[in-house]
Amino acid sequence: MSDSKERPFILVSNDDGIFSPGIKALAEVAAEFGDVYIVAPDKEQSAVGHSITIQVPLRSSKFTVADKYEGEAVNGTPADCVKLAHGQLLDRKPDLVVSGINHGSNAGINIMYSGTVSAATEGTILGYPSIAVSCTDFNEDANLRGCQEAARRVIKHVLENGLPRGVTLNVNAPAGEFTDIKWTRQADSRYVEEYESRTDPFNRAYYWLTGKFELLDEGKDSDIHVLNEGLASVTPIQYDLTAYDLLEGKEDSDLQE
Amino acid sequence: MSDSKERPFILVSNDDGIFSPGIKALAEVAAEFGDVYIVAPDKEQSAVGHSITIQVPLRSSKFTVADKYEGEAVNGTPADCVKLAHGQLLDRKPDLVVSGINHGSNAGINIMYSGTVSAATEGTILGYPSIAVSCTDFNEDANLRGCQEAARRVIKHVLENGLPRGVTLNVNAPAGEFTDIKWTRQADSRYVEEYESRTDPFNRAYYWLTGKFELLDEGKDSDIHVLNEGLASVTPIQYDLTAYDLLEGKEDSDLQE
Repeated sequence: MSDSKERPFILVSNDDGIFSPGIKALAEVAAEFGDVYIVAPDKEQSAVGHSITIQVPLRSSKFTVADKYEGEAVNGTPADCVKLAHGQLLDRKPDLVVSGINHGSNAGINIMYSGTVSAATEGTILGYPSIAVSCTDFNEDANLRGCQEAARRVIKHVLENGLPRGVTLNVNAPAGEFTDIKWTRQADSRYVEEYESRTDPFNRAYYWLTGKFELLDEGKDSDIHVLNEGLASVTPIQYDLTAYDLLEGKEDSDLQE
Repeated sequence: MSDSKERPFILVSNDDGIFSPGIKALAEVAAEFGDVYIVAPDKEQSAVGHSITIQVPLRSSKFTVADKYEGEAVNGTPADCVKLAHGQLLDRKPDLVVSGINHGSNAGINIMYSGTVSAATEGTILGYPSIAVSCTDFNEDANLRGCQEAARRVIKHVLENGLPRGVTLNVNAPAGEFTDIKWTRQADSRYVEEYESRTDPFNRAYYWLTGKFELLDEGKDSDIHVLNEGLASVTPIQYDLTAYDLLEGKEDSDLQE
C-alpha cells in the first residue's frame, strides 16, 4: 500500500468470543496492514449461523486483547457485533472486516452454520470487503501460524484488489504450516446420524447433537478436498442465494391454478 | 397425484413456534396433499438464521395443533427442529418439508436472517424437497388465505415436478388475496440506521435493533419488487454459497507470497 494513503482501518470479529486465542492471532495479522479495532461476542457463539438479536437489547463493554488491541465485547452474535460496530460503535468506516481465526474448519455445509462466516457475511452486506478465517484444528492451542499466513495473503490480496460487492472470502487452513493455497468452491456435504438419544433421571428423553460429516462431492476443486490434502483454501461466497440455473427454466404459468 | 401411490408425508415446521396461527394455516394446506406431522419450536425463534443448538441437549414434547395435526414441540431453533425430526422423531422419511406460514415477509436480505427459511433449507440439506412460506403482514391475525393459496400451488408444483437437489423454494405472499404469482430472484437489499441507543437507570448504554430496510435493487424480477406490487413471489434459493462468477477469474498464483 502506498504511504500517501491513510492506514487502513480493520474491524476484527469472531464467534469464539473475545478470549479466544484465534482472535488475538487474527488481530496480529490485521495490525500488520492497518489500525485494528475488535468488536466480538462476550462469550462463545459457535453454530449460531446468521442469527441476530431482536428480543433483548445489546450492550457493549470496552476491553483490550493481549494488552494491545482495543475493542468492545458485545452480548450478541457475530452478526450482531458487526452490525452494532457499523451502526453505533465505530466512528470511522472500516476498510476491511475480518472474522476469526475460528477454532475448527468452516468448509462445505458448515458454512451455513458458522458464526465466524456470518460476521464476515454481515460485513459484506453492509458494503465492506470481508474475510472469514478458520483453522481446521479444533484445539484452542493449535498452531495458528499457517492460518495467519493464509489470512495475511488474503488480506493483502483484498486490500490491493478489492472485492466485488456481495462477495465474502472464506479462508480455511490447517494447523501448522501449509504448502499451497487454492481458490476453491464450497463442497456439497451434510451431516448424518446426527443425534445421540439419552434418558434423564426422570425418564425423559433428551438428544445431543453429535453428527457425522458426510462429503457428497468428489470434485478436487472443493474446499474440503483441498483441506483434506493439507492445503489452505479460499472460497468466494455470496449472500445472493438465488438459484439462477433453476430460475431460468421456470415459467409463471407453472404456478397458475 | 396418482391414487396408486401412498399419500405423501409432509413435515411442517416454522420459526414463530407451535402456537402461531401461521403453522396451523400451513398444516391445513399440507393436509390437502398428504399426511402431516409438525415439528416446530416451543417458542418464537425469529431472526435466528441457520442457528443450531450444540451447547445444550434438545428435548421434544408431543402436542396437537388445532385438535387435528399431531406433532412435537422442540426447545430449539427451526433448523434444530428439522434436523431432530429427520434424525430422531420421524419413523418415515418425509416427501416434503414445509416451513411457515411466517408472520412477516422473508424476501431480499431477510432471507439470511430468517428462521422460517432456515427450516426449509435444512430440509433441502437433508435431501428433502422443501418450501418456506411467509406472509408480508406481521399481524398475527392477518388474513392468510392468499398465502395458503400460494403454498397450495407451490406444494402441488413440487409434488408433481420435484426439486433439484440443493434448491429450496422461498414463497412470500401478501395478506388477503393476490392477483398473480411470479418466479423471482432475491432482491439486493440491506438495513440502515440499525440501532436505537438508550441509557439504562444505571447510566449504561444499551441498543435496540430497529433497522430501516433499504432496497438496493431496481430490477422488476426481484422478490421485493413483485411483493411491493401486491403479487405473490416464489424464489428458488440454494445452500451452495460459492460465488462462481468470481471464482472463474481467480488464479492460485494471486495468493502466493
